[in-house]
Amino acid sequence: MNAEGRKRVVIENLKPEIDSGRFPIKRVIGEKVVVTADIFSDGHDTVSAKVLYRRERDHEWREGPMRLSENDRWKGEFVVEEVGIYLYTVEGWIDHFKTWQRDIKKRYDAGQDLRVELLIGAGYAEEVSRRASREDKKKLIGFAEVLKRVKGGEEFTSVALSAELMELMDLYPDKNFAVSYEKELRVVVDREKALFSTWYELFPRSISSDPGQHGTFQDAEKFLPEIARMGFDILYFPPIHPIGRTNRKGKNNILEVNPDDIGSPWAIGSKEGGHKAIHPQLGTMEEFEIVILKAKEMGLEIAMDLAFQCSPDHPYVKEHPEWFRWRPDGTVQFAENPPKKYQDIIPLNFETEKWEELWEELKSIVLFWIEKGVRIFRVDNPHTKPFSFLEWLIKEIKEKYPDVIFLSEAFTRPKVMFRLAKVGFTQSYTYFTWRYTKRELIDYLTELTQTEVREYFRPNFWPNTPDILPEHLQYGGKPAFMIRLVLAATLSSNYGIYGPAFELCINEALPGKEEYLNSEKYEIKRWDREKPGSLQDFIARVNRTRKENPALQTTRNLRFYEADNEALLFYGKTTEDLSNMIMVVVNLDPFHIQSGWVWVPINELGIDPNQPYLVHDLLSDDKYIWQGEKNYVELNPQVLPANIFRVRKKLKREMDFDYFM
Amino acid sequence: MNAEGRKRVVIENLKPEIDSGRFPIKRVIGEKVVVTADIFSDGHDTVSAKVLYRRERDHEWREGPMRLSENDRWKGEFVVEEVGIYLYTVEGWIDHFKTWQRDIKKRYDAGQDLRVELLIGAGYAEEVSRRASREDKKKLIGFAEVLKRVKGGEEFTSVALSAELMELMDLYPDKNFAVSYEKELRVVVDREKALFSTWYELFPRSISSDPGQHGTFQDAEKFLPEIARMGFDILYFPPIHPIGRTNRKGKNNILEVNPDDIGSPWAIGSKEGGHKAIHPQLGTMEEFEIVILKAKEMGLEIAMDLAFQCSPDHPYVKEHPEWFRWRPDGTVQFAENPPKKYQDIIPLNFETEKWEELWEELKSIVLFWIEKGVRIFRVDNPHTKPFSFLEWLIKEIKEKYPDVIFLSEAFTRPKVMFRLAKVGFTQSYTYFTWRYTKRELIDYLTELTQTEVREYFRPNFWPNTPDILPEHLQYGGKPAFMIRLVLAATLSSNYGIYGPAFELCINEALPGKEEYLNSEKYEIKRWDREKPGSLQDFIARVNRTRKENPALQTTRNLRFYEADNEALLFYGKTTEDLSNMIMVVVNLDPFHIQSGWVWVPINELGIDPNQPYLVHDLLSDDKYIWQGEKNYVELNPQVLPANIFRVRKKLKREMDFDYFM
Repeated sequence: MNAEGRKRVVIENLKPEIDSGRFPIKRVIGEKVVVTADIFSDGHDTVSAKVLYRRERDHEWREGPMRLSENDRWKGEFVVEEVGIYLYTVEGWIDHFKTWQRDIKKRYDAGQDLRVELLIGAGYAEEVSRRASREDKKKLIGFAEVLKRVKGGEEFTSVALSAELMELMDLYPDKNFAVSYEKELRVVVDREKALFSTWYELFPRSISSDPGQHGTFQDAEKFLPEIARMGFDILYFPPIHPIGRTNRKGKNNILEVNPDDIGSPWAIGSKEGGHKAIHPQLGTMEEFEIVILKAKEMGLEIAMDLAFQCSPDHPYVKEHPEWFRWRPDGTVQFAENPPKKYQDIIPLNFETEKWEELWEELKSIVLFWIEKGVRIFRVDNPHTKPFSFLEWLIKEIKEKYPDVIFLSEAFTRPKVMFRLAKVGFTQSYTYFTWRYTKRELIDYLTELTQTEVREYFRPNFWPNTPDILPEHLQYGGKPAFMIRLVLAATLSSNYGIYGPAFELCINEALPGKEEYLNSEKYEIKRWDREKPGSLQDFIARVNRTRKENPALQTTRNLRFYEADNEALLFYGKTTEDLSNMIMVVVNLDPFHIQSGWVWVPINELGIDPNQPYLVHDLLSDDKYIWQGEKNYVELNPQVLPANIFRVRKKLKREMDFDYFM
Repeated sequence: MNAEGRKRVVIENLKPEIDSGRFPIKRVIGEKVVVTADIFSDGHDTVSAKVLYRRERDHEWREGPMRLSENDRWKGEFVVEEVGIYLYTVEGWIDHFKTWQRDIKKRYDAGQDLRVELLIGAGYAEEVSRRASREDKKKLIGFAEVLKRVKGGEEFTSVALSAELMELMDLYPDKNFAVSYEKELRVVVDREKALFSTWYELFPRSISSDPGQHGTFQDAEKFLPEIARMGFDILYFPPIHPIGRTNRKGKNNILEVNPDDIGSPWAIGSKEGGHKAIHPQLGTMEEFEIVILKAKEMGLEIAMDLAFQCSPDHPYVKEHPEWFRWRPDGTVQFAENPPKKYQDIIPLNFETEKWEELWEELKSIVLFWIEKGVRIFRVDNPHTKPFSFLEWLIKEIKEKYPDVIFLSEAFTRPKVMFRLAKVGFTQSYTYFTWRYTKRELIDYLTELTQTEVREYFRPNFWPNTPDILPEHLQYGGKPAFMIRLVLAATLSSNYGIYGPAFELCINEALPGKEEYLNSEKYEIKRWDREKPGSLQDFIARVNRTRKENPALQTTRNLRFYEADNEALLFYGKTTEDLSNMIMVVVNLDPFHIQSGWVWVPINELGIDPNQPYLVHDLLSDDKYIWQGEKNYVELNPQVLPANIFRVRKKLKREMDFDYFM
């Protein structure tokens, strides 16, 4: 029987759906997917709908209820419980029994004769009884019998309108003419760290305890406890591969090179090997694997840099000249962004006829390091590699290793950055580094957390990187570093710093530029980690706050609140059940004390306007009793430029009287 | 050679695209389709793009240029020239030569050595010359030769950067790795009347010149000149089929019927026939065909009502009982919206197993009347028929008769109304009927004209219908009728009235309802068309204004302007070339004189702030000299509640001095 023409339900405008379903949305284990859609039919009939979801490898759909909110918009949800791919879609059908139940009530209220209507209802119950369990069948036939001979009003209400009958009928809906949404949409489910991670970027070559020596993996090992104590959970090393000699850059990126210059680690490849080798001065492969294990013991994962480019000395250049672009004079094309030249780096030519071999080789690099124990990759300049290659690479890797995390290091045009996230990057660098003012921060974070972008783009906020010492850190002193740390750590659940330059508040730049003066990219640095004024303890406190407060472990829940001072940014994050409520006030001005009124959204937070509530600053440990919406704050950047308040309501009975002492 | 992996361009977020391309957009002959998309690639290479379009029956794509506007957004356009279906999509590719030309300029400005670069450029020219015409080949090889030996700056600029070389190269782009957008999208192109039409709804049974007689098609014929004089171009008759007798409704929709009650024309079908027959009292099929022809001579088209429902006496009920729903007591299910009952009408059961035969029969009704000469159908209550049926029906009909116009008479929930437009309706009834205040009108019209809705939903504004005498017409007197007429006629390029009730300002309703008292739906009316105070002449003037001003012949061009009085609605429409500029001010208050300042968007209109300009009210024929943005208006609803200004700029030299007299 061809039922096509009898299917009357329409499902449209399903969300989330990225680019017509071309790309998946992203979640981590335990997160919810809220699915909404416009679902309706012609006429006056009542519609029922379900959200359907399953792991990709399963065959059976699981079902979740959908409910009509308003204006034909329906809403349902499901929770993802495992890394890998989930599918979801929506199904809707005309529910003749529900229609009957709704209508017979109206007829009853209008005093109409119901005899024939009751027979119709009995018919529905009998029909459904045919596909019911033995027990339900009996009940349904019983209902049908009663419906056929119902007389009075009370009996009518207790039978025809009974919840029991409705629930029974609901167990065996007539889906002969059910309509499925025309697409099955995908969710990539990652492990929790994809959403909540704290990164520390470190050049191991600068951490030798022996002055003037090239640091090693063994030196890095000694630094691990301090990184763990500061509360980081990912330790990211710039490339650890042999560094080329040809066109090696000198200190501060100059072309004239001294014999003892060590070059940029991003100029990958030399006689000693390429992307699968280790720079001899750092140590051996075994020592690297030991760092990975030792780090793990302290709750730290090692993240690796994937920079798909070569120094002119990389073995690929001789072995696979077809992977590079050659000029009419027989020289190889080095990296350029005219008129800028990067003579120590040659890009891969992804337009090569041998692109399939090139793709396979690059994939083998990732697999090589996965086998060594790496599960997190920071991908260098992904916006200079074809999207199709990156999409393929990430898909291939995650099919086998769904727990791998890829961070996109792209600072480029917005649509390019978003596309990189769509093709599969787990996390992405952002423009946060250059968003200073209240307006800029609110606009940017609203885009990231309140639009469709939040479904696929997981921001990772970096106040500094080896490439970027932003203006406000150059002139704002230690308060600026504290401000930017608190913003990064509380606005975004993923954030990272490039240290020890960060905690030591290093702020000398090349004149008129955002480049560090005497950048670690081109030389070994000596960090005085014991220097007074280091932010180590402050960072540890901020990171502990993140760990202890689930509200800070996601980004989508960010909401901005009102403050009457343009230098004060006021925002909050809560868990869905309001069991953890955090409010942050940041003085964006590193130079002056700023004060003003802030408006707490007490309705949203479920706070009684007539009851006091406690706000506990987790940075200073100060506590304040507030009441109502409007409260006063004052922040001295020289002391502490921010408060991270945990809100405790219900002070009345359950309150801890110690708070008032 | 597998090129898939070498295709580096991305095309996304293409607009217009309705529901992932599931539905076409709509245009009329001569209209433009503006296509925008995000187009970019990895890296720093320059991208080129084209919009591709073709009639569905053609094989070759035609091309239009696309240009980068900002933020990776590209824009192109094409014009549709024929009724039927057009397809469109977008193509983009990396343009290595354009990249070279951009970069070599930067290198030149930076004083770099260009020798190898020039050889690369020569190589591009030689490569392209291989696919060039004989003549262009010669030129390109010539350019290549010169590039190889270019020395000085001036020579460099005149060769490498020359527009001639660029244009030559542009003729033969290298599209080996070109990317096409993954979908081909559709445009349904209608004739002009789909966008610009003026409807008059008339019950022919009420226009007999002989009092007390049932009007006929011959009577309608006599009324045609007056309808044409008022400036209408579509005359729409409610159903003209035999009216059922069983459960016929009496005057004012009561169940007690007198023997001389004539019933509702929407209760279709009797012994005399069904949807392919004519109600005997109206005349014969021949007489109907004559009305169609006579109307055509006066520039009028007859629109027909398609009401897919039956009276209990319809021949279908006996011939095809399987197309109806039968109740357990053996009676047929009549139309209901509980607790309301429509006993004179039985709906078709679209869930019947014989739905395919039902669909075919309904289609045959449309074809039947098309063969009689009808090309415009007003579809009654389409929201109570399955969307899939309507989509199929309209598609089937328009494949053979692409000039047919279908008007959706649905007053229901917004998403249902929009879906009906998506599945194919050419025009749609709207909520205009109930939008009275400035805020309501601006919000609603903004939704219809500034969002994606405008791509597929063509509004048709009706101030009244036989079913709806809205509140403001009940109490606002003649000024209210004038206000609503001007609004309908100038806000929307498609509009209609139910007359003569409209021009005679009939405003008596059933108490507390929007139903006409003594509605023409249930009885023959006697209209005193010569009554003083009729709006006939006013309507004629408004419609002439529409005909003479192309700016009023589309709806998408509507823009609201500022007025400082909440009772004054100020808006404008212009042709794209600004050769026709209309500004309308309406006093929404039918009771009081309203005045205030209005702000003319002189920048957008290209008006010099230092020059006076003429505004000519096409309703009163009054003229005013205005200057600058801010000008004063005053409207007395008892005299004329609106101005429809034609704007004439460049008064200085070209001005007609008579205007000042």
